[in-house]
Amino acid sequence: MDEQDLDGLEISEFGAASHRIENVRAACAEEGMDAFLVRGTSNIAYLTAFDDVFDDEEAHALLVTPDEALLHTDSRYSEAARSAAVDGPVAVDDSRVSFAAFAVGAPIGRARLAVAGEGGAEGVADPAVCGGEVVLGIEDTMTLRDYRALERAAEEAPRPFRLAETTGLVLGLRAVKSPSELARMKAAQVITDAAYSHIVGFMRPGMTERAVQIELEDFMLRHGAEGLAFPSIVAAGANGASPHAIPGETRLEAGQCVVLDFGARAFGYCSDMTRTVFMGMPDARMRAAYEAIRAANEQVEAALRPGVTGRAMHELAEQVLADHGFGGAMGHGLGHGVGMDVHEEPSLSPRNECALAVGNVVTVEPGVYLSGAFGMRLEDFGVLIEDGFKVFTQSTHDMVIL
Amino acid sequence: MDEQDLDGLEISEFGAASHRIENVRAACAEEGMDAFLVRGTSNIAYLTAFDDVFDDEEAHALLVTPDEALLHTDSRYSEAARSAAVDGPVAVDDSRVSFAAFAVGAPIGRARLAVAGEGGAEGVADPAVCGGEVVLGIEDTMTLRDYRALERAAEEAPRPFRLAETTGLVLGLRAVKSPSELARMKAAQVITDAAYSHIVGFMRPGMTERAVQIELEDFMLRHGAEGLAFPSIVAAGANGASPHAIPGETRLEAGQCVVLDFGARAFGYCSDMTRTVFMGMPDARMRAAYEAIRAANEQVEAALRPGVTGRAMHELAEQVLADHGFGGAMGHGLGHGVGMDVHEEPSLSPRNECALAVGNVVTVEPGVYLSGAFGMRLEDFGVLIEDGFKVFTQSTHDMVIL
Repeated sequence: MDEQDLDGLEISEFGAASHRIENVRAACAEEGMDAFLVRGTSNIAYLTAFDDVFDDEEAHALLVTPDEALLHTDSRYSEAARSAAVDGPVAVDDSRVSFAAFAVGAPIGRARLAVAGEGGAEGVADPAVCGGEVVLGIEDTMTLRDYRALERAAEEAPRPFRLAETTGLVLGLRAVKSPSELARMKAAQVITDAAYSHIVGFMRPGMTERAVQIELEDFMLRHGAEGLAFPSIVAAGANGASPHAIPGETRLEAGQCVVLDFGARAFGYCSDMTRTVFMGMPDARMRAAYEAIRAANEQVEAALRPGVTGRAMHELAEQVLADHGFGGAMGHGLGHGVGMDVHEEPSLSPRNECALAVGNVVTVEPGVYLSGAFGMRLEDFGVLIEDGFKVFTQSTHDMVIL
Repeated sequence: MDEQDLDGLEISEFGAASHRIENVRAACAEEGMDAFLVRGTSNIAYLTAFDDVFDDEEAHALLVTPDEALLHTDSRYSEAARSAAVDGPVAVDDSRVSFAAFAVGAPIGRARLAVAGEGGAEGVADPAVCGGEVVLGIEDTMTLRDYRALERAAEEAPRPFRLAETTGLVLGLRAVKSPSELARMKAAQVITDAAYSHIVGFMRPGMTERAVQIELEDFMLRHGAEGLAFPSIVAAGANGASPHAIPGETRLEAGQCVVLDFGARAFGYCSDMTRTVFMGMPDARMRAAYEAIRAANEQVEAALRPGVTGRAMHELAEQVLADHGFGGAMGHGLGHGVGMDVHEEPSLSPRNECALAVGNVVTVEPGVYLSGAFGMRLEDFGVLIEDGFKVFTQSTHDMVIL
């Protein structure tokens, strides 16, 4: 690692939660919303910057008002949440009410809300005193059931409430990573690269895909991963032609290629890499396919820089694959954002017309899938920097022949 | 295992998907719905009875009409899905359209839908021919974003569409388990009990919670588990007072008790157990607390039978804890259903006034949590049978002192 990397490995970030919550408040002010309700657990983990509090249960709600950030949770989490909240901007509430009752009850009683066209010199007023509709921003990733509960609670609230549906508001903030977040992902990738080195020394013909998966995952967990980024894929031979194959009792055989797609979770953040390895010398068609995905991977990584679109990068990969005789053999998007979740914004896909920005972390994972024969994928991930793309993944792109 | 158990270990179930899909059709007919759209991945896995196709991505939709069951998926899954669908009642569609376009497009063109008050002697008619509103049942667990997309697609559909929101329709079907499902959960529990035997021989003072977790999970994965039912909890001393503690660098110390809450996934189904073990001789208060949770666990397991309510079982446990001097120290519900997901219907909680039924699989997990001191929980799971409750968990309730 160079010195810049070592600097980046400072992973504490004083004031992260305050900064992130201020960004939500700014978005609220821009959209005319008086408060914002967050239900997505990853979004809550991001905004609170609490480490080691949340698991994958959707048991929490965070209400951001101009004056407060209030986390509603239950007794199973309140000790850990209160401990993480000390000296920070988030208050913890574990009262035994529904999230909907919490959401419509809390801001009116406690906060002074910005109300468009009302209030004093600072443009703020307490609607509980001076009247006016409360506009509560919500995420459209909440369930329909939660939405209906919120509608009912809003109808019974003492003041008129309007629910303003938003798409990807917090996800958008999450798409630009801070130095602390980059350091966490680099740390996750160090574990992932080490696991790859280990597993290529472990794999032998006759082993099952499942046995390889178990060894790979155990290595990551015993070498610093706090969990997996996602269930690993180990797909041998024709199984590799399914991009989301589930490892099973298929045995590795000489002459096959094997797709390994895996990632660690460290300090709350994910890594994601794929390598395709060869059980003995590959035939000419496999060599050609590998050259195609390697060229697509490397040409995209050389082209990635702020200002290009996700769509352009996807199309570049498709073009390189076609030039190598594998047009139309990918079938999935070229890449996706990575962060606390393994699939975040922005995507490198035909649907993303937006320009990429400094701080975006994305995968580059061109693949070729030939039904009944084999599949291959070569995936790195890294961050958009001022003048290009800095790859976190350190493992070689050279063919690995076992 | 007795002979009945061995019979139960026959895990294939010919015609499971057909039976389950017929149950959805019957519910549709009862509720006046022409078709039902399933978005929840576990619900889709249940209804299709496909093994080893789905991971945890929400990438699929299943449309059940009177004539068809049509799975919409994408190219990453279509090979595996088509292979699983052979000779079964489910057809696979991987056309590159949105789930919403799929949902409003498919039934009109392809199926004859039951339309209330119209049609011939059997009460069926093709609305594309004879007119009439299509009532499409949906799950209220879908995201608000998906719901809005479906609303827009329905508005543009050639025929009038009405979306009928339902709560827990498929979950309700899943609450009563078949012999095949029970066998799968017993198999998962056999692995889980073995892991418990292993881990009590492994644990020593000075080890971190995290090291114990890694060993526990690796054992399950190397002994037949296809995955974990949920991230395991290993919580020592005061950490145990948080029911959802995340294992960390805290070291096991003499005099503490340690909560172990873990489960395996086998053949697509979960197990779930908790034991609390003692690092050396516990003090009098810990002994009293352990006696309290053991008594609550055993009195509930003796009382569980078809016809009792979840609420009554929860209250019985609270009463036993209070009689032992630990009233109000539990804070969470007594138990929950288990199946493909680790939290299913029915719950043993104050909110469940419904009578339990033969085939319900539930946990019984009374706990005592004393902030700053310790926490304890004793959890089994099993199935409601004609005359009581059959526990899957085989590990002892006796105090385990290491």
